Amino acid sequence: MAFDRLIDNIIEKQNPTVAGLDPKLDYVPASIKDACFAQYGKTLEGAAAALLAFNKAIIDQIYDIVPAVKPQAAYYEMYGWQGVKALAETIAYARKKGMFVITDGKRNDIGTTMEAYATAHLGTTDVAGESIDAFGADALTVNGYLGTDGIKPLVQICKEKDKGIFVLVKTSNPSSGELQDMTLTNGASVYEQMGSMCERWGEELGGKYGYSGVGAVVGATYPEQLKEMREKAPHTFFLVPGYGAQGGGANDAKNAFDKNGLGAIINSSRGIMCAWKKQGLTEEDFAAAARAEALRMKEDILSVIGEIKA
Amino acid sequence: MAFDRLIDNIIEKQNPTVAGLDPKLDYVPASIKDACFAQYGKTLEGAAAALLAFNKAIIDQIYDIVPAVKPQAAYYEMYGWQGVKALAETIAYARKKGMFVITDGKRNDIGTTMEAYATAHLGTTDVAGESIDAFGADALTVNGYLGTDGIKPLVQICKEKDKGIFVLVKTSNPSSGELQDMTLTNGASVYEQMGSMCERWGEELGGKYGYSGVGAVVGATYPEQLKEMREKAPHTFFLVPGYGAQGGGANDAKNAFDKNGLGAIINSSRGIMCAWKKQGLTEEDFAAAARAEALRMKEDILSVIGEIKA
Repeated sequence: MAFDRLIDNIIEKQNPTVAGLDPKLDYVPASIKDACFAQYGKTLEGAAAALLAFNKAIIDQIYDIVPAVKPQAAYYEMYGWQGVKALAETIAYARKKGMFVITDGKRNDIGTTMEAYATAHLGTTDVAGESIDAFGADALTVNGYLGTDGIKPLVQICKEKDKGIFVLVKTSNPSSGELQDMTLTNGASVYEQMGSMCERWGEELGGKYGYSGVGAVVGATYPEQLKEMREKAPHTFFLVPGYGAQGGGANDAKNAFDKNGLGAIINSSRGIMCAWKKQGLTEEDFAAAARAEALRMKEDILSVIGEIKA
Repeated sequence: MAFDRLIDNIIEKQNPTVAGLDPKLDYVPASIKDACFAQYGKTLEGAAAALLAFNKAIIDQIYDIVPAVKPQAAYYEMYGWQGVKALAETIAYARKKGMFVITDGKRNDIGTTMEAYATAHLGTTDVAGESIDAFGADALTVNGYLGTDGIKPLVQICKEKDKGIFVLVKTSNPSSGELQDMTLTNGASVYEQMGSMCERWGEELGGKYGYSGVGAVVGATYPEQLKEMREKAPHTFFLVPGYGAQGGGANDAKNAFDKNGLGAIINSSRGIMCAWKKQGLTEEDFAAAARAEALRMKEDILSVIGEIKA
């Protein structure tokens, strides 16, 4: 299953982290923007070209040390279809470099429509007999509010194409508890219920490390819930946002891992993309600064979980 | 507020329905596909050109009698960025014809990322001082699982730009109850809790008909819950899927309306796009068949709710 490929990559690189690619135009150095605007004007096309050049430079600097990237769809949609084209090109570029690509789209819908999303992001689209990858990521984040119908088509494509999904369970934002922390009459919280649904949905997609192809998003900003869910969802691999810019530290993130240092991947987006600011460098050094931050983050996490063992 | 514009349009046309534009390549007549494939090849570009031509023909046939269209993002993403370009062009075309456009994307994320989605779909994107509409719909469907942080940036843009959102409350699919029908310890169901959050989120966006700019998605396939939510969320305008192909009828949908025939808009997607099949016509008559079905649906709904009054 797909997360076996991801875990293989994590073990080989001894690095359980993923670089979030949520590029805002503000993060892109002036030299890149100026060149793109000179070629395409101050247009969505120009902006998209700048994002793509920025992403490629970061990928070039980290692909040998970081196992995965997570482009966030919203930051591409913000620049129209031209931005969405840059998303597709970013995915293709990162995969060519051997990285595992998680498209962060949090997609959700009824069954027939989820088939279309699953096809779009993880499968292949049929055009009059031609099979074409529309976006072709390795995994997609999804929202399980609609229940099993909305997840089944994804599980089917994950099985056929060796892909994975991450379902939102306990998100990293301040108000995530408004609904997710409420208690149901069966004694479980809403997020706990969602976690148990992930365990069930993953049954068909077992992997060699004990983790299924149905993962969960659980934020580092809620370390207690992270610890609880690690125990209650032992076959569910975690994608953990909230480290760094959102306030989570290595000791918080630690709760996501099992005793072998497996079971989770920790995301950092702004921390890596905007590393030059923190390191007191100029923006022209953004890519080297991103590499330095990726290495620092890896060491930070490994310092609390130790060696990652198969 | 945005839903005032929508309601004005509903009253003027005496038609509380929205045409879903979820075009699959299978629905598009061979003559359109052949012409597009001849020009662009059997590619995503060719498929996207066919979808756009199909949508435009349907819009041309219904814009004078139907107040709104609802393109479903998944069916465009399935055809890559080329499909997403067709989505943007469909939105622009429908708006030019005076239709209210609801992008059905069910987007959701943490606050900073929701700002990007809100900008993408409802706002204007800043590119080095130039303000550009990326998609420019009138309303967007969203998922409220992440709580207030994920809704606030949308409410802000709705206020600034006269737009609206529809939050998933009780969805139309068979397994929607798995989570949504569970009872919380405060006595409310999960969907009811989400409905009360919609009432609260809408407080800042009141409209002249008593409905706020924060609407809710409640399926016609669950008429009892629809009736319950109409009573419990009196300021929340409903987008009602599930009529027609999914099994809901006019008597089910009736529960979504208030005593003036306001408070809801009923969606039909496959029923309208594939009307030629039901009417025993050839696929070349798809656009005329779509108009006939749109008129039949309008009469069907009006027959149970009566005249729509301001």
